[in-house]
Amino acid sequence: MAGYNLEAIEAAPLKDDVDIVIPTIRSLDFLEQWRPFLQHYHLIIVQDGDPSIKIKVPGGYDYELYNRNDINRILGPRANCISYKDGGCRCFGFMVSKKKYIYTIDDDCFVAKDPSGKEINVIAQHIKNLETPSTPHYFNTLYDPFRDGTDFVRGYPFSLREGVQTAISHGLWLNIPDYDAPTQLVKPRERNTRYVDAVMTIPKGVLYPMCGMNLAFNRELVGPAMYFGLMGEGQPISRYDDMWAGWAAKVVCDHLGFGVKTGLPYLWHSKASNPFVNLKKEHKGLHWQEDMVPFFQNLRLSKESDTAAKCYMELSKMTKEKLTKVDPYFEKLADAMVTWIEAWEELNPPVKSEASEEVNPQVKKRQSDGKDVKAN
Amino acid sequence: MAGYNLEAIEAAPLKDDVDIVIPTIRSLDFLEQWRPFLQHYHLIIVQDGDPSIKIKVPGGYDYELYNRNDINRILGPRANCISYKDGGCRCFGFMVSKKKYIYTIDDDCFVAKDPSGKEINVIAQHIKNLETPSTPHYFNTLYDPFRDGTDFVRGYPFSLREGVQTAISHGLWLNIPDYDAPTQLVKPRERNTRYVDAVMTIPKGVLYPMCGMNLAFNRELVGPAMYFGLMGEGQPISRYDDMWAGWAAKVVCDHLGFGVKTGLPYLWHSKASNPFVNLKKEHKGLHWQEDMVPFFQNLRLSKESDTAAKCYMELSKMTKEKLTKVDPYFEKLADAMVTWIEAWEELNPPVKSEASEEVNPQVKKRQSDGKDVKAN
Repeated sequence: MAGYNLEAIEAAPLKDDVDIVIPTIRSLDFLEQWRPFLQHYHLIIVQDGDPSIKIKVPGGYDYELYNRNDINRILGPRANCISYKDGGCRCFGFMVSKKKYIYTIDDDCFVAKDPSGKEINVIAQHIKNLETPSTPHYFNTLYDPFRDGTDFVRGYPFSLREGVQTAISHGLWLNIPDYDAPTQLVKPRERNTRYVDAVMTIPKGVLYPMCGMNLAFNRELVGPAMYFGLMGEGQPISRYDDMWAGWAAKVVCDHLGFGVKTGLPYLWHSKASNPFVNLKKEHKGLHWQEDMVPFFQNLRLSKESDTAAKCYMELSKMTKEKLTKVDPYFEKLADAMVTWIEAWEELNPPVKSEASEEVNPQVKKRQSDGKDVKAN
Repeated sequence: MAGYNLEAIEAAPLKDDVDIVIPTIRSLDFLEQWRPFLQHYHLIIVQDGDPSIKIKVPGGYDYELYNRNDINRILGPRANCISYKDGGCRCFGFMVSKKKYIYTIDDDCFVAKDPSGKEINVIAQHIKNLETPSTPHYFNTLYDPFRDGTDFVRGYPFSLREGVQTAISHGLWLNIPDYDAPTQLVKPRERNTRYVDAVMTIPKGVLYPMCGMNLAFNRELVGPAMYFGLMGEGQPISRYDDMWAGWAAKVVCDHLGFGVKTGLPYLWHSKASNPFVNLKKEHKGLHWQEDMVPFFQNLRLSKESDTAAKCYMELSKMTKEKLTKVDPYFEKLADAMVTWIEAWEELNPPVKSEASEEVNPQVKKRQSDGKDVKAN
């Protein structure tokens, strides 16, 4: 372990409550650099593409690895809801995990440094984000009020300071920014060098583009809504797996009364993917997002949907109803959403007492008066 | 001018389009330190309290100064809408200005330094914020996409990338944070040392606590909505002047299709005010904000209100209707809101052609389909 930051390893927070999910088609050498921060956690590796290829995992890591044959064997006919030749296959790992938290990371990402030169412990920051409340009903101008040295500012209603449980922590990237193909083509040399020292709640009712590169979430709260869609080989679209999951999970969080944070931690994104290949993969998405975003902005889930799984089933119906007219693909996607929930529930049978805990007690109150704060 | 940053002075952006409004009860020695950045701008000083006291303004500044006698002379009986012995009197300065932009600053604020040690040109940053669009309909995870080195990330709908005109730029404070009295009492030693290198749009439909310490806005777009209320002597409440203006101006911006930004620039807030005095001033506000915030969160302005002044008149009616039951004070405030608009229009008679320019053409479209983006 020479040369590694032992302090960080020993401080690996909640190591028995977190699984790290990594989709990959290549060697996992990138994990060498992550040892100080990730080695004490269990990995779930989802091998994409040809299952006969042997993925090399650096020694010392505790992991389980699933290739396409494993997915087919475990899910049977329902395996068709898991994308092939697309990073969206990672959501299979969310399904087989039994942990409270998931951290998912791409294999072209490395440890970044903060402005003081210190290596960033991504998991520690994500856990901090997930274990402290979110504040989706009103914006705090000094950002995360639960961070050391900060609080709620003057004019922040006291009734809102308790916050709500956090379900998602969306981390960012230094170096290669997460641009779409047209922006990559126009700005080939743009690099993200700005370290913004903030974590903030994305307010209720507001959508954002969730990137799957550096993402953590509470799977007990929103796991079933973290479906990365049907993308890649055999589908007309790619590179929208995380976007779809992000939009869906955000409306589910808003409905159930959970919070979503974005900002720290940063990691180092090493390699820009080929913009021409990306353009081919995402060109339908670039068009369809003009309909997908308003779809998610305008939908309203029903009171009866009081768990992430029920919300997702309702969302599947709405997808079929409203988006099939954009393209027949959405009918297939809507069906896959149902399959996903069936598979999820088979692998994660709802336990009566646990299921009721999943529902935030604030939800019902909020739904019944239809207001964010105390009614007038 | 020895010792001053001449480059900054010569670079004073839009100096003929900006008035700096300063409410004060004391000497304005704090302006000495601001010379490099503020000396080329015109000042409007609103003297609060005893009008017989002579305010000392450092030499070399171009200014006009109004004391209570001047306010009474200029506004006649309508002068009662301007607060006395409260920083809210600053809004008189907004009214007599003829400039496009207002920058308002408190007299206990000084030049801050960025992490590289460079003095921050607050006006230059505010102008940049105001002259570039806002993006209130969808969150960009890399913050302000109009900043150098940043852009819209993958998954940001192209139809939303044009953005909307920015009306308000809310700057922050290093050192003494803007806390209410209870938080001041609980955390007497807390200082804001975190420089968050970001500017962001506060999304549509989301409220925030606007602080008047370091604030810039486009008075042509939202001047009439920047009323700092009826506070201070003779009123049951103080220290909510900027909050009231912030909530009102935000719902007006949301309705008219203008954007509100927060973040950079920082200034240095030197002195915490007395928490016991503050508690006395704000204790009703601490209670009433539990009703004021939901009031602003839930109200909907009508299509007919297509200028800031018309919106504000409608808001005054709603204030009377909905908040008078909280306390009779709100009836008085609602009347003062009407007086404010009458006074504003007397000093700023609407010019037909200019008035129509005030309305963002996107407003009507958005109001008619009731959606943020393209309808489904």
